[in-house]
Amino acid sequence: MCRWLAYSGSPVLLEDLLFKPAHSLIDQSLHSRLGATTTNGDGFGLGWYGLGQEPGVFHSVQPAWNDRNLHDLSRHLSSALVFAHIRASTGGAIQETNCHPFRYGTRLFMHNGLIREFGKVKRDLAMAVDPSLYAHLEGSTDSELFFHLALTFGLEDDPPTAVAKAVGFIEETGRRHGVAHPIQMTVATTDGGSVWAFRYSSEGDSRSLFFSTAVATLKAQYPDNPVLHGLSDETRIVVSEPLGDLEGAWNEVPESSWGVVQEGQDEMHPFAPISP
Amino acid sequence: MCRWLAYSGSPVLLEDLLFKPAHSLIDQSLHSRLGATTTNGDGFGLGWYGLGQEPGVFHSVQPAWNDRNLHDLSRHLSSALVFAHIRASTGGAIQETNCHPFRYGTRLFMHNGLIREFGKVKRDLAMAVDPSLYAHLEGSTDSELFFHLALTFGLEDDPPTAVAKAVGFIEETGRRHGVAHPIQMTVATTDGGSVWAFRYSSEGDSRSLFFSTAVATLKAQYPDNPVLHGLSDETRIVVSEPLGDLEGAWNEVPESSWGVVQEGQDEMHPFAPISP
Amino acid sequence: MCRWLAYSGSPVLLEDLLFKPAHSLIDQSLHSRLGATTTNGDGFGLGWYGLGQEPGVFHSVQPAWNDRNLHDLSRHLSSALVFAHIRASTGGAIQETNCHPFRYGTRLFMHNGLIREFGKVKRDLAMAVDPSLYAHLEGSTDSELFFHLALTFGLEDDPPTAVAKAVGFIEETGRRHGVAHPIQMTVATTDGGSVWAFRYSSEGDSRSLFFSTAVATLKAQYPDNPVLHGLSDETRIVVSEPLGDLEGAWNEVPESSWGVVQEGQDEMHPFAPISP
Amino acid sequence: MCRWLAYSGSPVLLEDLLFKPAHSLIDQSLHSRLGATTTNGDGFGLGWYGLGQEPGVFHSVQPAWNDRNLHDLSRHLSSALVFAHIRASTGGAIQETNCHPFRYGTRLFMHNGLIREFGKVKRDLAMAVDPSLYAHLEGSTDSELFFHLALTFGLEDDPPTAVAKAVGFIEETGRRHGVAHPIQMTVATTDGGSVWAFRYSSEGDSRSLFFSTAVATLKAQYPDNPVLHGLSDETRIVVSEPLGDLEGAWNEVPESSWGVVQEGQDEMHPFAPISP
Repeated sequence: MCRWLAYSGSPVLLEDLLFKPAHSLIDQSLHSRLGATTTNGDGFGLGWYGLGQEPGVFHSVQPAWNDRNLHDLSRHLSSALVFAHIRASTGGAIQETNCHPFRYGTRLFMHNGLIREFGKVKRDLAMAVDPSLYAHLEGSTDSELFFHLALTFGLEDDPPTAVAKAVGFIEETGRRHGVAHPIQMTVATTDGGSVWAFRYSSEGDSRSLFFSTAVATLKAQYPDNPVLHGLSDETRIVVSEPLGDLEGAWNEVPESSWGVVQEGQDEMHPFAPISP
Repeated sequence: MCRWLAYSGSPVLLEDLLFKPAHSLIDQSLHSRLGATTTNGDGFGLGWYGLGQEPGVFHSVQPAWNDRNLHDLSRHLSSALVFAHIRASTGGAIQETNCHPFRYGTRLFMHNGLIREFGKVKRDLAMAVDPSLYAHLEGSTDSELFFHLALTFGLEDDPPTAVAKAVGFIEETGRRHGVAHPIQMTVATTDGGSVWAFRYSSEGDSRSLFFSTAVATLKAQYPDNPVLHGLSDETRIVVSEPLGDLEGAWNEVPESSWGVVQEGQDEMHPFAPISP
Repeated sequence: MCRWLAYSGSPVLLEDLLFKPAHSLIDQSLHSRLGATTTNGDGFGLGWYGLGQEPGVFHSVQPAWNDRNLHDLSRHLSSALVFAHIRASTGGAIQETNCHPFRYGTRLFMHNGLIREFGKVKRDLAMAVDPSLYAHLEGSTDSELFFHLALTFGLEDDPPTAVAKAVGFIEETGRRHGVAHPIQMTVATTDGGSVWAFRYSSEGDSRSLFFSTAVATLKAQYPDNPVLHGLSDETRIVVSEPLGDLEGAWNEVPESSWGVVQEGQDEMHPFAPISP
Repeated sequence: MCRWLAYSGSPVLLEDLLFKPAHSLIDQSLHSRLGATTTNGDGFGLGWYGLGQEPGVFHSVQPAWNDRNLHDLSRHLSSALVFAHIRASTGGAIQETNCHPFRYGTRLFMHNGLIREFGKVKRDLAMAVDPSLYAHLEGSTDSELFFHLALTFGLEDDPPTAVAKAVGFIEETGRRHGVAHPIQMTVATTDGGSVWAFRYSSEGDSRSLFFSTAVATLKAQYPDNPVLHGLSDETRIVVSEPLGDLEGAWNEVPESSWGVVQEGQDEMHPFAPISP
């Protein structure tokens, strides 16, 4: 059911972020410890901001641990804001259009979890997507549809509210179809500036999600660590599953929460769906 | 904009059908003479009836001329009813779920042509698909949606009427959105018994389509041809573009027509859309 | 480091062999219990005998659990002799030419294991391949080279001797380069009639290998089992890892052994490399 | 038989180089005018210098016109030295290890042409590759082997001599095997600084090759052209087939020549193989 990583901070070489840490995201594609599945080999995706306004994306149906292009690219791409996702399909076809992160204009979105009994609710959800956005759907995943619902509910203006409304709509639709726990999710979305992350599930037992301890704090804790000293105090990473092996570097995002990584003080708040 | 081939008759080794003829379908993937594009390298697909009720399908995003698995399979698969399609994308992603033939239960469907300005009309068309079928859509092509509209309008019971209704609906929807010539098509569909083929376009200038001369006639014309003598008199092939090099073997399907290859006498009739 | 399965006996639908059993080979691609790695997601391959003399092969770089074409094909292909292999790369590129089984004429060959420090010994091994066979090498694996050495040493005439000579040569070459334990292997090879299987490693601690109990014995043990009653008494399966859940169905192949599944009595013998 | 492009000069956005010009390299993958084949859809590759010493490479088996990752990457990668190649296979498997440019350390190499009757000469050529380089071969192409022969003959120290020796060896080997015209080639190679290009064939009728007119000259010719004014006077492009639509921008490289794009004055000289 996927693992993901969102990085915001000092420009980082993608290889240092994706491959080098102990229990890196690439390692998690083969040996996840906290995910619903050990293996996340149904494709992967990368989104990063750099030249121009729109982020670049790179998607592949090859498992992340297999893909030479990914490793090569990672050695040559540096970015201050990176989304990476490894996929474990919950049924949808394995194709590049089903890889995260999804992109719309300058916005990226990725998801770990699922919309339960998706076949039953898919049409109702699709019909609620703004008509001007409908043709932008290209794949067949619940995640992509979730993204388009969030866009419909104003993701470009007010992400927390938009995601809350999307989740509320998905829950209401699911319940109308007799689905007990319609949605399971951790989500990250960005416009190239701030990064919003969400952790919630209808059943109150959500996929794992962690955020990194403030870099200033870690620098004090580990004054000799060279990697840390290369990072700005603004640097923050949000992950499905901790990377690296530094004690105290990770903090669990509580159930039913959302947070934002932004200039200045980052924030965390309770998350509740907004019913239609 | 694709080329296809539908074969019905004596069991044939797929290699003999797809690779061996002069100007074979595989050759047409690289050197089409009559198609909208010379190259049809955006994937291919195969559907065939054999063991069990449901047809097998094999789809690949590799160009047909490149794919070793296709050639190998073709040497080892024999079938009395085969659909083969080589794709030239009109914009949709290159992925296996966008390859023809599409399958639903025991039915196959393939299409050469397009629904113009698809982005404008896609949502209206999708919303007209029967709710019970909506979740079966997996790709992003106009062709797959066309297939699901035809299913909605009764393809399983009365293919000519269903296709006529689907085309009528697509034209009406297109015109409502200001599209002058909404649809261009040749289509083949089968349930494993009969094969229905259609040639029509809103502008009255349709993609090429040919059917083979009756085998009995060809046998009389070419009494020494060994290939012909291996074929039953029931054998019929319908193609976007003629194969082989036998004079008199191919006959153009007239504009705005549909035909059916069936036990006993095959038929051809005028085709007209049925407006909603 | 791969898992494989060799089947010889009554014609079987590939789906029944590859997908249906408990802990099937496809399941082992994700959850191997006895292999060097849990996941064997670096591609898979299928070889089968049917129409014509030469076997058909189907190779894919997609993990076996992901590949729809494989599942579809399996529902439509029936064969009396099947080789199937799921790969966990030991370093070589992920490409179809690196998938097993390898084919030469009517012969198939597959391997679980490795030739250690392959980079050091590769050239010496390649130079020992018969010049007439050298250009037939297409991939970059140790397994493919091992196959070509066995062909060079007479695999087509006397498989046990040829494999023993190949292993002897690989060990001698490895030791010349300072490699302590040059080879680890289970191997299966066939000409479409008999199937030879081998289990050996330089270190005397070989990858797992099992053969099925005689069908006649199992039929007596499980008189009501319908699957068994569909199988001829000649039917035999050799596997890296047991399938299904029938007690007493599997027997470990001892260390340093080779066996042959053939008409009439199958045989097992000790295996020893023949030094050059 | 491929088309390629080598760019050296002002940092350029890869999209502007690969996609935007009239009759761009991507366009040539579908509609080559001067190549041996119209379509070059058997994969493509990109090599570029940027972060670090070693170039990045990106290879794909998807035709260039199909690959979204390539287009996305191109929008986000900028480089002062770029090699791009679109492939039309002369028989070798379609796999990423058979895509150009090939890389060894900091060096890239790409080739348009072929070594005739490669199956006959392959072993002799492979055996002449320096033993320390043999295991670096991963694919099955004549081009990759040619590269490794050039490396063996000193490509890292003196490219023109090394290529001349490699060609001489290939010709002598071919003639020993009764091949009349052993080699057909245009080649480009670089170490990240200078770029060497070669045009030669045993038959004296070589694949097309062009170099761009000096930018200073073009700027004088087209004082209002904004693209030109963004380019340094050092900028030079070498191509199989002209891009863009500027009159006088391209000059044919004569038969049997080699040239070097370097700081200061670029040079061109006659090319002659050096026999072993």
